[in-house]
Amino acid sequence: MAERKRVVILGGGFAGLHAALGLAKLTVDVTIVDRRNHHTFQPLLYQVALAVLSPANIAQPIRAIMRKHRNVEVLMDEATGFDTTASRVHLQSGTQLVYDYLIVATGSTHSYFGHDEWATLAPGLKTIEDAIEIRRRVLLAFELAERQMLETGVHPALDFIVIGGGPTGVELAGAISDIAKLYMKRDFRHIDPSKARVIILEGSPHILGMYPEDLQKKALDQLHALGVEIRTSAHVSDIQPGYVMVGEEKITAMVTLWAAGVQASPLGKLLGVEMDRRGCVLVDAQLNPAGHKEIFICGDLAHVMQDGKQVPGVAQPAMQMGDHTARMIAQDIAGKPRTDFHYFDKGDMATIGRKAAVAKITWPFKAHLSGFPAWLTWLVVHIFFLIGFRNRISVFREWAWTYLTFKDGVRLITGSHELPGWEAKHGLEVPNPADEPKTSNAP
Amino acid sequence: MAERKRVVILGGGFAGLHAALGLAKLTVDVTIVDRRNHHTFQPLLYQVALAVLSPANIAQPIRAIMRKHRNVEVLMDEATGFDTTASRVHLQSGTQLVYDYLIVATGSTHSYFGHDEWATLAPGLKTIEDAIEIRRRVLLAFELAERQMLETGVHPALDFIVIGGGPTGVELAGAISDIAKLYMKRDFRHIDPSKARVIILEGSPHILGMYPEDLQKKALDQLHALGVEIRTSAHVSDIQPGYVMVGEEKITAMVTLWAAGVQASPLGKLLGVEMDRRGCVLVDAQLNPAGHKEIFICGDLAHVMQDGKQVPGVAQPAMQMGDHTARMIAQDIAGKPRTDFHYFDKGDMATIGRKAAVAKITWPFKAHLSGFPAWLTWLVVHIFFLIGFRNRISVFREWAWTYLTFKDGVRLITGSHELPGWEAKHGLEVPNPADEPKTSNAP
Repeated sequence: MAERKRVVILGGGFAGLHAALGLAKLTVDVTIVDRRNHHTFQPLLYQVALAVLSPANIAQPIRAIMRKHRNVEVLMDEATGFDTTASRVHLQSGTQLVYDYLIVATGSTHSYFGHDEWATLAPGLKTIEDAIEIRRRVLLAFELAERQMLETGVHPALDFIVIGGGPTGVELAGAISDIAKLYMKRDFRHIDPSKARVIILEGSPHILGMYPEDLQKKALDQLHALGVEIRTSAHVSDIQPGYVMVGEEKITAMVTLWAAGVQASPLGKLLGVEMDRRGCVLVDAQLNPAGHKEIFICGDLAHVMQDGKQVPGVAQPAMQMGDHTARMIAQDIAGKPRTDFHYFDKGDMATIGRKAAVAKITWPFKAHLSGFPAWLTWLVVHIFFLIGFRNRISVFREWAWTYLTFKDGVRLITGSHELPGWEAKHGLEVPNPADEPKTSNAP
Repeated sequence: MAERKRVVILGGGFAGLHAALGLAKLTVDVTIVDRRNHHTFQPLLYQVALAVLSPANIAQPIRAIMRKHRNVEVLMDEATGFDTTASRVHLQSGTQLVYDYLIVATGSTHSYFGHDEWATLAPGLKTIEDAIEIRRRVLLAFELAERQMLETGVHPALDFIVIGGGPTGVELAGAISDIAKLYMKRDFRHIDPSKARVIILEGSPHILGMYPEDLQKKALDQLHALGVEIRTSAHVSDIQPGYVMVGEEKITAMVTLWAAGVQASPLGKLLGVEMDRRGCVLVDAQLNPAGHKEIFICGDLAHVMQDGKQVPGVAQPAMQMGDHTARMIAQDIAGKPRTDFHYFDKGDMATIGRKAAVAKITWPFKAHLSGFPAWLTWLVVHIFFLIGFRNRISVFREWAWTYLTFKDGVRLITGSHELPGWEAKHGLEVPNPADEPKTSNAP
């Protein structure tokens, strides 16, 4: 009998988990390595950032997901190098893992286009920590404005800038507008949160670039209905505490969020294989980099061409690549030939606030939906794909509660009570306060 | 008609909230100032620390609690000084609040008995942030041990030290033992989490000092049944990364937690009134510091004597002091005389793991309970006192799910992946690793 094959999977995102769940049924030994202890359901991360869901609703320990699969082990660690000749992965802890098959699915992270100093001024949304930080900043903005109003009778404008008009940017902007107008307005006595201004800055001429024109138009209409301002062909030249520069124009911002660029995880570079300019690994139709049929690249890290276009870096293709890779390893073991990966696109969707969305559906029927029907579709699909029955019911319950009752969600501010640029902005916006501070505490 | 009285409440804990809810019914203007945006239900904080509940289950924005009460406003700010002659509170933001009545209920914080350098080595449990930090450390200990085991074939002992044998210490110790033995053991392939050792170090001769002797004995028995080791009259002389010194003895610790001392918030000092050595404000039977009938001190910050004993700094008396203060202000407005505060002690309870507890009940009947009946009592009382209907059902559901299914709770590790002393301990415990790292990834 042949020795059991050893499969090492780097990354516990959609691609890595789907590969692992496929391999769990085979007589192979699988090790999943992730630097976090949990899988994050990224499509709902913006709902944690905007205080609708709790982190535990959309994240689950990878160990817990894999508990029943005794041939799968999980290691909280990080790959730091490869020896592809000896088929070894070097981990940060010092451990080396030997593999017969290596699946690299470490995804992508924010790209600030060479301006790494923008990271603290305009956080992006990739991890639970990011989501908690965005939640903190958005909620804190209202608190600081209320405080300022009480002290001086004026407050800086409640301006929120979202840089990037892709699905994440649109979802963040719609959700901020919702929170401000529907939820926060009842809670403050001195400021009017419904006067919050949400601005999307998109560098290209269109938001939701990958969507068909009619849906882009619908999305624009729905965003306008929520009061979100959209500026396209707006190139951000600088981000500073309290404002963003678009060309020569200075746009004030109490909170700035980043939803513009992503870059691949650096593992492609460590592997020493061919990459595109964003660091994605160029792979063949079977997801292997040149010369390495034992290495599979899956998810956002893979640069896969199909019908002349690059397969997008979103959840669906990642899951399908993971599934495909597990099947190919099964084919190898069974002595059958491998087949090409083919991305089966069922469609795309993005929500806009609490009851609208746009959806391009390509399977099981073709349709362009918008408004409430698109939102309902989004809801069903996202509940269906949440891994773990418990998460499904808990998310559904949280949504039902929050959407039906307008109740509180999880509006906790944790961590620091500082907002970048608050002091500067405070000086900028507020006319000279009188020497003697006002006293005022009458509601 | 007399002008509306202005009441400023400092602190949104049990005392402050109860005072505010009482005052909300009167024709007075109330301002609650808290440096956090949320009220924390502290008796359940240890369940967040041990990954049973999510932060949002036990914390709620103070604004949301007060939403319906239009005469109450909430300010996220912090008192930095007082001018009791002009009846003003100075806030960090620069705002000054004028009061007719001032209620100071800013509670207590950890005391490291002059060793502030211990704070990062042995976190205490007072805030949501503390709870998330403890959760991070406890969960990370198992992950790092697994990683170490895979690399070298040995791992540092899974030793958890809880300093302090009061209710919080007992609850933390019982819960760590539970997580390790019931939940974690199924999730690791290389280490045996059930071998985790939990040690309570208590400086006095008895744990749960305020409980009657028979319940102390029962608590000891229940802790022993869970495998928790208890060392009484154990004076901690030093805490270092990786170990704790008790006199000359060095006790290794992968994680050290602090549940030993508390000190009052520094506001007593700022008020310039008489205090005890822990910084609690000495008040008369009507909760006023000497010479200030317009100032009430409530909750942990108040040093109140009753029947020759100090009223303990726990939730029940805090709530009662808040209620009493609101009533006294109502009496003043009605032109009626004030009455003395009288703490009505209904009993005390502390849980020990997932199905045991000790309870000293003094109302509506007198009883000493232990084991499962005490635990059931604890459950009912704590659900009943959770502020907010939503929290009540969400906590009950989380408990039911976790307790009945042994499922995952919320075992997310967020933040840094470092553990103080891990490197040192790793060097301490692990025999010289071979020059060539072992390779091992067979489950």
